[in-house]
Amino acid sequence: MSVVGVDLGGTGLRAGVVEADGTVRGLRAFEHGGLRKPHDAIEAVARAVELVAQGEPVDAVGVGVAAWVERATGFITRAPNLGWVDVPFAELLARRLGVPVVVHNDLKAIAWGEYRFGAGVGADTLLVVFLGTGVGSAIVAGGTLWTGARGFGGEIGHVKVGPDDGPLCGCGRRGCLEAYVGGGALARRAAEARAKGLLAKCGDGEITAMALERAARGGDPDARTLLEQGGDLLGRTLGAMVNILNPDVLLLGGGVWFASDYVQDAVREGIDFTSHPDLRKSVRIVGSALGSSAGVRGAADLARRAIERA
Amino acid sequence: MSVVGVDLGGTGLRAGVVEADGTVRGLRAFEHGGLRKPHDAIEAVARAVELVAQGEPVDAVGVGVAAWVERATGFITRAPNLGWVDVPFAELLARRLGVPVVVHNDLKAIAWGEYRFGAGVGADTLLVVFLGTGVGSAIVAGGTLWTGARGFGGEIGHVKVGPDDGPLCGCGRRGCLEAYVGGGALARRAAEARAKGLLAKCGDGEITAMALERAARGGDPDARTLLEQGGDLLGRTLGAMVNILNPDVLLLGGGVWFASDYVQDAVREGIDFTSHPDLRKSVRIVGSALGSSAGVRGAADLARRAIERA
Repeated sequence: MSVVGVDLGGTGLRAGVVEADGTVRGLRAFEHGGLRKPHDAIEAVARAVELVAQGEPVDAVGVGVAAWVERATGFITRAPNLGWVDVPFAELLARRLGVPVVVHNDLKAIAWGEYRFGAGVGADTLLVVFLGTGVGSAIVAGGTLWTGARGFGGEIGHVKVGPDDGPLCGCGRRGCLEAYVGGGALARRAAEARAKGLLAKCGDGEITAMALERAARGGDPDARTLLEQGGDLLGRTLGAMVNILNPDVLLLGGGVWFASDYVQDAVREGIDFTSHPDLRKSVRIVGSALGSSAGVRGAADLARRAIERA
Repeated sequence: MSVVGVDLGGTGLRAGVVEADGTVRGLRAFEHGGLRKPHDAIEAVARAVELVAQGEPVDAVGVGVAAWVERATGFITRAPNLGWVDVPFAELLARRLGVPVVVHNDLKAIAWGEYRFGAGVGADTLLVVFLGTGVGSAIVAGGTLWTGARGFGGEIGHVKVGPDDGPLCGCGRRGCLEAYVGGGALARRAAEARAKGLLAKCGDGEITAMALERAARGGDPDARTLLEQGGDLLGRTLGAMVNILNPDVLLLGGGVWFASDYVQDAVREGIDFTSHPDLRKSVRIVGSALGSSAGVRGAADLARRAIERA
């Protein structure tokens, strides 16, 4: 069976043909302008699939997308970073391509890829958390991807950790974890701080996590506070997850994670703070083994399994 | 196959013969003095099993116990309410009785009982939370009891929600959720408040949740604050679980829960506060269908399934 995996993010997409053993052939990365129209996304994904398949027949397509995806149907209820609401994504793409399409949240595809072929192989209870533009996460336990009743389970990003007048989140609420520690949120919060005369060392452009890290290392207390506050909130939430889920492997990654030692240190301290030592000591914190190909591999493997089961 | 189920709590135990369809025969409840010695507990459980079996042969025994239980082995690492550390409970009881013994945390047994025979039948993702002397919880998802890697998963009681100098918890740490809202914690905190001249309406004896509720309804602001603060912390933690797990059924029960409308209202508000509306609206909050027999039925059924699988 020939299966193509696709990882559709807020600014780019990756695709490749994925073998049953997880090997990827012809992995390609494409930038896109944002794809605010679902129709444009369907076209972009369809063209990417055709391109990586190189004329060979495709039996199924698996897609991971930064969105809230209903399980079973692949219906997207919200994709804040893409600006979509209520898009029957799997159905539209299947009609366009004429093959079965299986759609999951992007972190679920990444977590599944790492579980099947990467740093999560052999894990009993795997928790994967990516700190990128937003905060994405997913759980694999007992060989099964956690979906919850409707398909939205496994996500920590929209747990409310701040007050009712906390920072606005892409999901429409205020005070979500993602509104404090995602890369987008850090940039917005940094811009607000600069407008108040703070963060003088960060220049005039958009402030990335890496720029904040440089400023913090250079002695800017406000940059350090932003990074540490976000890391602390994330770490405390992860510590609660360590208690509640009792994972043996916690995989941490994403651009903001790698950009900032201040974030990393605060996350680790936060985990130690909220989790019980008996549970903390049974979890191993690891990095990704598959890097940016994890989502492509995981999405394809989930599609392969769904088709084979059907 | 004849299977006896046992629910071993901090002050009493229940036992009965449980059929494959969940019917209980000869359910009996026994008070015990605390069973601080594991050997006494083994004897008490063995005698209860023999009593309810009424001379008939027993093929297996399932026990739910208020403890941290390692999965597969039934080894208890901690039982704060019983005062135990590192007890090979399943092995000791199996040697005493001469039949296979399967041990789980008490809330896991209760959750499984409600999932198989009670208010959780048909649930995809069931979260059960009991607010009694402590805070117990367990998760059943996709037909499987959540254990986590070592067996301690599904528990919210020891998530740290307060500061390093917060109230002492039975687990040895400070600031655990259970140290704010469990019945034992409420009694301790009420005694401290009374020592400062507060809670004048509560009399001189041990202060129960029910006494606090009466005082709060009678206009005592400190009683009300204690109940609402505990309920709020529990509710916020449950709201995070609703986001992270996406359950379709949340079963709430336990003595403190039923004793206090102030607690119940604060819990519901806390859930609404931290959970996202898209996830909040897909969870149904229900009460127990099996009452105090849930643990006996669940423990027996878990034993039956483990034996049949072996």
